[in-house]
Amino acid sequence: MRSDRLGESLLPKRLALPIFASDPLSSVAYATQEILIVLTLAGTAFLYLAPWLAIAVVLLLVTVVLSYRQVVRAYPSGGGDYEVAMKNHGQFAGLTVASALLVDYVLTVAVSVAAGTDNIISAFPALNEHRVALAVGLVALLAAANLRGLRESGRTFAVPTYLFISGILVMIVTGLVRDLFTGSPVVAESAGYTITPEPGFEQVTGLALVFFVLRAFASGCTALTGVEAIANGVPAFKPPKSRNAATTLALMGGIAATMFSGVTALALAADVKYAEHPCDLVGFTACETEPQRTVIAQLAAATFGGPTSPGFFYIQAATALILILAANTAFNGFPLLGSVLAQDRFLPRQLHTRGDKLVYSNGILLLAGFAALLIAAFDADVNRLIQMYIVGVFTSFTIGQWGMVRHWNRELRSEDDAQARRRIRRSQAINAVGGSLTTIVLVIIVVTKFTRGAWLVLLVMPVLFLLMKAIDRHYSHVAEQLVPDTDSRLLPSKVHAVVLVSKVHKPTLRALAFARATRPDHLTALTVNVDDAETRALQQQWERYDIPVPLTVVESPYREITRPVVDFVKSIRRDSPRELVVVFVPQYVVGHWWENVLHNQSALRLRARLQFQPGVMITTVPWQLESSIGREDAGLRGIGPAPGDLRRGLTDEAEHTPYG
Amino acid sequence: MRSDRLGESLLPKRLALPIFASDPLSSVAYATQEILIVLTLAGTAFLYLAPWLAIAVVLLLVTVVLSYRQVVRAYPSGGGDYEVAMKNHGQFAGLTVASALLVDYVLTVAVSVAAGTDNIISAFPALNEHRVALAVGLVALLAAANLRGLRESGRTFAVPTYLFISGILVMIVTGLVRDLFTGSPVVAESAGYTITPEPGFEQVTGLALVFFVLRAFASGCTALTGVEAIANGVPAFKPPKSRNAATTLALMGGIAATMFSGVTALALAADVKYAEHPCDLVGFTACETEPQRTVIAQLAAATFGGPTSPGFFYIQAATALILILAANTAFNGFPLLGSVLAQDRFLPRQLHTRGDKLVYSNGILLLAGFAALLIAAFDADVNRLIQMYIVGVFTSFTIGQWGMVRHWNRELRSEDDAQARRRIRRSQAINAVGGSLTTIVLVIIVVTKFTRGAWLVLLVMPVLFLLMKAIDRHYSHVAEQLVPDTDSRLLPSKVHAVVLVSKVHKPTLRALAFARATRPDHLTALTVNVDDAETRALQQQWERYDIPVPLTVVESPYREITRPVVDFVKSIRRDSPRELVVVFVPQYVVGHWWENVLHNQSALRLRARLQFQPGVMITTVPWQLESSIGREDAGLRGIGPAPGDLRRGLTDEAEHTPYG
Repeated sequence: MRSDRLGESLLPKRLALPIFASDPLSSVAYATQEILIVLTLAGTAFLYLAPWLAIAVVLLLVTVVLSYRQVVRAYPSGGGDYEVAMKNHGQFAGLTVASALLVDYVLTVAVSVAAGTDNIISAFPALNEHRVALAVGLVALLAAANLRGLRESGRTFAVPTYLFISGILVMIVTGLVRDLFTGSPVVAESAGYTITPEPGFEQVTGLALVFFVLRAFASGCTALTGVEAIANGVPAFKPPKSRNAATTLALMGGIAATMFSGVTALALAADVKYAEHPCDLVGFTACETEPQRTVIAQLAAATFGGPTSPGFFYIQAATALILILAANTAFNGFPLLGSVLAQDRFLPRQLHTRGDKLVYSNGILLLAGFAALLIAAFDADVNRLIQMYIVGVFTSFTIGQWGMVRHWNRELRSEDDAQARRRIRRSQAINAVGGSLTTIVLVIIVVTKFTRGAWLVLLVMPVLFLLMKAIDRHYSHVAEQLVPDTDSRLLPSKVHAVVLVSKVHKPTLRALAFARATRPDHLTALTVNVDDAETRALQQQWERYDIPVPLTVVESPYREITRPVVDFVKSIRRDSPRELVVVFVPQYVVGHWWENVLHNQSALRLRARLQFQPGVMITTVPWQLESSIGREDAGLRGIGPAPGDLRRGLTDEAEHTPYG
Repeated sequence: MRSDRLGESLLPKRLALPIFASDPLSSVAYATQEILIVLTLAGTAFLYLAPWLAIAVVLLLVTVVLSYRQVVRAYPSGGGDYEVAMKNHGQFAGLTVASALLVDYVLTVAVSVAAGTDNIISAFPALNEHRVALAVGLVALLAAANLRGLRESGRTFAVPTYLFISGILVMIVTGLVRDLFTGSPVVAESAGYTITPEPGFEQVTGLALVFFVLRAFASGCTALTGVEAIANGVPAFKPPKSRNAATTLALMGGIAATMFSGVTALALAADVKYAEHPCDLVGFTACETEPQRTVIAQLAAATFGGPTSPGFFYIQAATALILILAANTAFNGFPLLGSVLAQDRFLPRQLHTRGDKLVYSNGILLLAGFAALLIAAFDADVNRLIQMYIVGVFTSFTIGQWGMVRHWNRELRSEDDAQARRRIRRSQAINAVGGSLTTIVLVIIVVTKFTRGAWLVLLVMPVLFLLMKAIDRHYSHVAEQLVPDTDSRLLPSKVHAVVLVSKVHKPTLRALAFARATRPDHLTALTVNVDDAETRALQQQWERYDIPVPLTVVESPYREITRPVVDFVKSIRRDSPRELVVVFVPQYVVGHWWENVLHNQSALRLRARLQFQPGVMITTVPWQLESSIGREDAGLRGIGPAPGDLRRGLTDEAEHTPYG
């Protein structure tokens, strides 16, 4: 796959949907459950609010999807909220979004894997005591797969995503049909449990009630996580890119809304109870040893004939799989964001140009490490992890939407056509509504979730912000030093070549021959006298070989090599400051890392010191030892598509899938 | 201190003695005790053998000292047993000695620190429960001091050594005088204890008795450890070096013999009991919680008025101090041996030429790490550690003495003068006796100590042997590849300079100017197109600055830099194989390590790959960023005398001490 053939490899909508939608659609697996957890704090008295909260969440989802349809049209380059914020609000907003997104990638992994683990445990409750180990193991597995070069591909992702969507939809329809039209309604295993209110929630009225409802609503907003993914992936779509991306967004939004409302409706119909702690459920006698099944698992069991039926295992497998796929998307999105931030000089620049796999490996290990840390710190508890997750998500939603409002203002200024202006005004109105709603939700989240984990994110984000700011400042400071002036084009008057000699052997003779080939104005063969006997032997050999350059010997009082050479070079520069000194250092090229322990230590140290001298160039004259033969491509092998390439339209999907 | 002023800084005998004798003299602190430990295995029945064993050890000590007086005369270069073995028996024997010595340095640290700890605990029994922590802490302290550049100096070492010698001698004289001529003989605190024989030692007769006596004798031979130190330090003596070294050896031997026999005599007179385990002592009721005091401590307490008297504390302090000094000598001898082995290509060659402190630091950490490991593994138990120690010591004694016998044979062949031949024959006789005795002792040690720890040393020595052999083979193999032939002096026909360009800024312009100053036959300014927009901007700038070299752009299908450049260079070489390619890589010189994370990653990777191409030189054009200013001497500071220099006559003692 080469960039000149990019056009052939872009994604049709039917493959783009599973790639980008696994993250947002997988939210269905935990959003309903999160609403129930908050509502049941006050016993079962407020469960009647659930449908209204679900409706509010769906409305919010629709608004956000509509808003992002404007984004993909206006910013088809795939920069998403970060680009929108940077271009319309400047660096402060841009870096805030970037910090939020970096945090969110870690939490996407942690939350999705934890939720996946819960659904595996729902199918095999015996695994409950290994919850954290299982979740950390899954993160390690994902990291290993990505380190080994696992790549996203529409084909492999399409199957589980469509299996999940169809499975959940069949479950909803079956369940609701049984409930409405047959005599055997769906009844969850927890339907018979009652819940006693938590201390402080026995009487919820007035302002406390408002706060309580808002808190439940904020929890439901987890249904929206991942919606922004498509906005970052516009370049991967087949042309017309923006239109296809917008269509896919609408499709994804429709499916997510349907699944979320369907699952919520069925959960209420089946009378599912789900509490923060299993033992809050009165009647669940085994609460000390057994886990609560997830809402999805309870519905699947109730609909398809119990927790041993094939239908139940199908739903659990598909749910766990899509959640793990969702976690995997973070491993692809993370390097992509890193590349964009590096291009803007907020992260080390090697993240932009592709060096070798090392950079990606470090990114994967960082992501997996922090996710595993969070999972371990919070006992793989989805509910606790989610409190942190939604802060970052809604921060970037909000800043992005308000950025779009500004964007349209600018467009309006340069647009005279009345019809076009009307279209712009409509887009602006959508984004303004989206921005207003997400702002309100963000405030609700910060207020209701601050003490429940959001504080940690609000602490980490500024740290990341300042780190990126410092990197940017460093690069700017360096760039200022490097602006060309007249001096920098002056040619040195003369060239003085210095060839370092330790022995009369092939590498030395080659270095001498190469140095002579560059026809310097002066040529010195230099050796450092560390051992008198060795130096005498060297001088005799030098004469025997009749080498046409005289050998200069410098003394080394402390038997070391670096300082005498540096001093010699300094003295040349002192005598004729406009002369350019070129130091030729023969160097062995070895095939195995351990050979470096036996060679080149002096050369390395010397180069490290010489580079501090102005007007000095260091020329390495490599000598390939036999062990190096055949190793020249070792570091170049395996360069090809990398994680995240598919999302920026850089992968040769066409060559690999029969769907292309 | 510079090598041209070496003559001024050599050691007079009175300063050489404490430097080299702290190790052998400190053996007095545990040799008597080791004999007692073995003898008391059979109860008190065989304690009468102790004087005879002590006499045998003293005779052996005298023989070995006489033998080494021949070594320092014949090999004044300070190579010691290693040099003797290498020159007279060849590589196999030489590497065997080297392995033994490497092991012994580790054990010198472990044994001396453990014995020092015992003597500290004898003064402060409450520290007994922290024995291992205390010993490991002392090793860490020694390592830290040596890492910080602690140097041996005659002055600082003289005081504790002479305090120890005079203290022990005063104790011996006082004790024996009280015993022989006064009515208040010295009685040890353990005099009243009895000892029941260990199982299997109730009846020791026949062959078992022989074995038992030999085992006790082997334990007493620990008195000889460290005797070889002077043979490695001849270059440090004032001229006449060999004669002064021989005199110092005789002096040291005399003092050691006196102290060892005195301590043994006093121990028997005072009826000291010392058993392998405290609870073997019948009558020592607190054996579970309290430690046995060392033999030295018991004698000091008995002689000077109990374990709270000033005299007692004086002896304990001096003993602990000299033991810790003895451990410290290993930190000086280790790099010295490393340097000699590196010169002979059995260890990485940077150990010979002094690079920076890094090499020494690694050596210090290795030595301290292994010593701490042994201490922890053997619970800082001197008795168990010593079983391993003497194997290596007597291995190098034996090989060295037999090497000397061969040496004198060679001398005889070229000597005709009758008187000189007589002198040689006498020396040879001394070494033959020494060699025979040490061989017998070595066999005794291996046989009696094998199962008690010697096996570990006999396992590690071959591993070290093979490692050094492999390093030697590697260097030889490389040297063969490097023998000059006619080809290696051919001048390349033409030079093609390639300057890597990423931006139009000072480093690039300087690299271009420098490249032009070398007047190559061809000059290419090369950039890699990673990002179309950036490349277009670069081309525009290139024209605006009116740079007199055309800019060549190569495409990068996978957004990476290394491979396109390597391919470009390969294509030059393919088209004209005799042309020399010089790749100019601008590189930032930074002042802080973390700045390297932000710069030069591509340059480093590129250089690593380019060096595999034959006929290619890589020229680094350093650009000193502001942060690098003032850092040029950072790596050169602190170069001066290093551990072990004093021992090879390389330290400016004269400047630092009023004694010089």
